[in-house]
Amino acid sequence: MENIKTGDITVGIVGLGLMGCGFIATLLMAEHNVIAIAPIPGDIAPAPERINNHLKLCEGAGLLDRPIESYLLQLEISEDYAQLATCSLVVECVIEIPGIKKSVYEKIENAVTKETVIASNTSAIPISELQKYLAHPERFIGIHWAEPSYFSRFMEITCGNHSDMQYADWVYELAHRWGKEPTLLRKDLRGFITNRLMYAVYREGLSLVEKGEATLEDVDKAFRYDAGSWMTLMGIFRRMDYIGLKDQLEMFKTIFPELCNDDKVSPLMQEMADTGAEGNRDSFRLYSYSEDEVRQWEEAFDLFNVDIFQLAAMYPSPREKNAHKI
Amino acid sequence: MENIKTGDITVGIVGLGLMGCGFIATLLMAEHNVIAIAPIPGDIAPAPERINNHLKLCEGAGLLDRPIESYLLQLEISEDYAQLATCSLVVECVIEIPGIKKSVYEKIENAVTKETVIASNTSAIPISELQKYLAHPERFIGIHWAEPSYFSRFMEITCGNHSDMQYADWVYELAHRWGKEPTLLRKDLRGFITNRLMYAVYREGLSLVEKGEATLEDVDKAFRYDAGSWMTLMGIFRRMDYIGLKDQLEMFKTIFPELCNDDKVSPLMQEMADTGAEGNRDSFRLYSYSEDEVRQWEEAFDLFNVDIFQLAAMYPSPREKNAHKI
Repeated sequence: MENIKTGDITVGIVGLGLMGCGFIATLLMAEHNVIAIAPIPGDIAPAPERINNHLKLCEGAGLLDRPIESYLLQLEISEDYAQLATCSLVVECVIEIPGIKKSVYEKIENAVTKETVIASNTSAIPISELQKYLAHPERFIGIHWAEPSYFSRFMEITCGNHSDMQYADWVYELAHRWGKEPTLLRKDLRGFITNRLMYAVYREGLSLVEKGEATLEDVDKAFRYDAGSWMTLMGIFRRMDYIGLKDQLEMFKTIFPELCNDDKVSPLMQEMADTGAEGNRDSFRLYSYSEDEVRQWEEAFDLFNVDIFQLAAMYPSPREKNAHKI
Repeated sequence: MENIKTGDITVGIVGLGLMGCGFIATLLMAEHNVIAIAPIPGDIAPAPERINNHLKLCEGAGLLDRPIESYLLQLEISEDYAQLATCSLVVECVIEIPGIKKSVYEKIENAVTKETVIASNTSAIPISELQKYLAHPERFIGIHWAEPSYFSRFMEITCGNHSDMQYADWVYELAHRWGKEPTLLRKDLRGFITNRLMYAVYREGLSLVEKGEATLEDVDKAFRYDAGSWMTLMGIFRRMDYIGLKDQLEMFKTIFPELCNDDKVSPLMQEMADTGAEGNRDSFRLYSYSEDEVRQWEEAFDLFNVDIFQLAAMYPSPREKNAHKI
């Protein structure tokens, strides 16, 4: 990898929705040549403006070192899958419907070499399931990007049961050139890492709220101002080191037996889901929001996202030599 | 509360260690008169410089609106518990040894009125246990501050079994004048909120590491760059709203049955604790650190703490009217 220039690697993106266009901006900034394929013909027309808008946001955040136009010279947009022939990597980011993904993979595999790495941005479907649709599943992996991808160091690379690790390792190295701090799951873990661990929090949090031990607001305040005050710097295990493991071990012994172990979703949440079953997203929320408040939260998140990305960049990740003992 | 001026409320702090001196700085900035009691005679001499240093850090972060000296006029430092007679609130922040706390509470109760609120900063001992040491336990509550308190909106107010809610409600209101976004636990929940929920994360995280599903580093990266990218803005339940509850409900149904439900501490952690049993803090850590790296992490956290506090201040908490439906 040390000798490979990203400019020599052509990457294909299939799916030109909001996320796909964001990935393209990230890859262009990393100096790749990009072939963008629109699986839906109607997606071709709006794509250039979408990509341009993403790059403008990057420019505003100081991430570009030359004019937007010069990045766009590295990009080709097409409906023709045959254009993917020169790609070393093709990332699929179409809608999360297995049948549609299947048809997309067939078209990709018809266009590329046997060793082109094919990846899905899915967060909902296990990679091993999707591998069933591939003629050469060994070069198929998951690459789960954040949204928007260019304002995040997050990336989860996930293998399925049939993935050949050499491809995953290659993408893992490459992702560092994209400014990511990727994680690499060598097994097909449901929920990947963050979701799986956060579901343990949600399970306990919902249980406390149901039992009347704490309110939604109090749990959120505790996480915003306490967990939030170190999460971006430390993650969870360095935090354990920082606090001191011996004390925590004693607390674990006291509190683990009291934690919620339910296999099932809390009755409260199921009831809310059933009540709001026919409604739109707004009708099934834990908090109530006016339309104005929904908009305010969305704006706040867009701004916060850039702020926390820039703050995190001031605290680089620990060196590799600092590897764990386990 | 609306009509009460904090300048009319005298607060006592018993315990002049690093944390206690930080609380004093926070209370002085909130315009309180403060009586600081040193339970250990040797703590009197270094206290003024400690408090001054805390106030200098606050000044550097732009939190002061007048010279440090003028804040110090509101402060009296003494070894004489009788000085607490005029306090409406006394906060104990001495070492976490029950016998020492018991003796401190006796001295405080001898000095104050029956209705003076007495609070402990403990995070290790249940409030109900400490109430056994009080002649008037109904006015005794927990106030768990962050460290350093002046760079955090976090505060957990906790009742014991014998606490009268009116005192907790009063402190809850008052804490908003200190620039806090406090949580109020009406029951004596072990681990309070953040720790309890984070222990659910640690349990699942340690289990994944033990099973070889993920590495320490990968879990930390996922939390730094994914969970960390929204935690300070949203907490966990607003995040659920933002993501969309219906999708999450489906994922919960799949993943809850797979989560770790162990009552016991993971064998790996117990083994490490046993191995390092005689050693100091350094000998029992998940990661390995050189002395330089320990220092670098501590410096980074001091800096990050101020940065994240200032970032969070740009995103004020949602209005009260935005209360939850549950």
